[in-house]
Amino acid sequence: MITSLKNISMVLVRPTRPGNIGAAARAIKNMGLSKLVLVQPVDPLGSDAYTMAYGAHDLLEAAKVFKTLPQALARSRYVVGTTARTHKGYGKPSSLMTATKDILARAQKQPVAILFGPESSGLSNDEIALCQSLVTIPTGKTHTSLNLAQAVMVVAYELTRAAASKLQSLSRPRWKIADTSQRERFYGELKEVLALIGFMKGSQGKHILADLRRIFSRADLDAREVRILRGIIRQTRWALTHR
Amino acid sequence: MITSLKNISMVLVRPTRPGNIGAAARAIKNMGLSKLVLVQPVDPLGSDAYTMAYGAHDLLEAAKVFKTLPQALARSRYVVGTTARTHKGYGKPSSLMTATKDILARAQKQPVAILFGPESSGLSNDEIALCQSLVTIPTGKTHTSLNLAQAVMVVAYELTRAAASKLQSLSRPRWKIADTSQRERFYGELKEVLALIGFMKGSQGKHILADLRRIFSRADLDAREVRILRGIIRQTRWALTHR
Repeated sequence: MITSLKNISMVLVRPTRPGNIGAAARAIKNMGLSKLVLVQPVDPLGSDAYTMAYGAHDLLEAAKVFKTLPQALARSRYVVGTTARTHKGYGKPSSLMTATKDILARAQKQPVAILFGPESSGLSNDEIALCQSLVTIPTGKTHTSLNLAQAVMVVAYELTRAAASKLQSLSRPRWKIADTSQRERFYGELKEVLALIGFMKGSQGKHILADLRRIFSRADLDAREVRILRGIIRQTRWALTHR
Repeated sequence: MITSLKNISMVLVRPTRPGNIGAAARAIKNMGLSKLVLVQPVDPLGSDAYTMAYGAHDLLEAAKVFKTLPQALARSRYVVGTTARTHKGYGKPSSLMTATKDILARAQKQPVAILFGPESSGLSNDEIALCQSLVTIPTGKTHTSLNLAQAVMVVAYELTRAAASKLQSLSRPRWKIADTSQRERFYGELKEVLALIGFMKGSQGKHILADLRRIFSRADLDAREVRILRGIIRQTRWALTHR
């Protein structure tokens, strides 16, 4: 696992729905993170939690549970609060995309906690005060309130996305496309069949052949595909001439 | 709303949990998208659906419901399947990040459908065959199976993220490609001709049809080209049966 991700805890503060706790555990594991922390949660091992934590029961059961947020954060070096609002005394929260790079850089060397408030109210002012920075998940305009586990998923996805894009170069190799002589033999055989079914009369035939060339060019045929197409064409020619 | 986002439908295929349908509706609205389509769903207006669709009851109630996937896709010009697996006859699915730019560019001018399979099994092979491209949501290695509504959220987030970020230098608008029902009629006729020349025996036939679908999907056929191809195929069929 990438070091930065290993150092990041997702902290659910006063979550009230077991299903959300379970769904958050699954999302965290899906995205290659590993730490779930719960502060004053509703029963985190209720049956809804288990159902929603499909495939991530280990992570759910390993969640650390604390009575207060300061206890939960005792060992964190950097605390990020998620919020959809602007809080008095804080500037506008950074957008998640902007903040991610900074979070990952910090998490390379030290434990980072990302806080998610309760479903109905979000983080309280006292909880916000414990954060070194605030981030907001960008949304459309008409409905800005995300489900808790969905918010955890988006943040986890963005972190993994940024961590991965740093590691891999973007371009992926194309498959090996067929060479010109293979393609031309195919077009030659195609033309014969078109003639057999009466499509090569006059200028119409030329246009149709040009259309077909353009279509197959765009498809970037590889050698195997050209063989398949030639097999079909030859078989068609045979059927047309041997009946 | 950004035009591209307005043209994108999120299509849940055979969803089995009302809560997931509701949560997907909320996620779609959160991220500024607007279209939810359901194919053969469990009761989409069950009480769990309403609870989870908090703030998005309008979108949930406006969801279009279809009995079959081809019906649901009849007017879509570009169909994207989400999958965690590699499917026989298809290459490795593109990663969501790579595919997003292309999806948005296409959605500038035409309806795009993004398909999400049932919770336990994902999209079937027949459903995958209706897709022009496949994308996968990048995950960590230990748990790659996302909750349905979480998958919808991540895709919606990535689309909104890309649409909003100044990479509005979207690549050239694509031409208007043929709609699904036109394409499927073409494939149906193609299959008949393959049968006439003896290519549809046993599993070989299925593979060849999958190969041909993949080739023509990559070519992004427009309506005129589908007409040309259908003309050739029908003429071939006539020649094969009237000699």
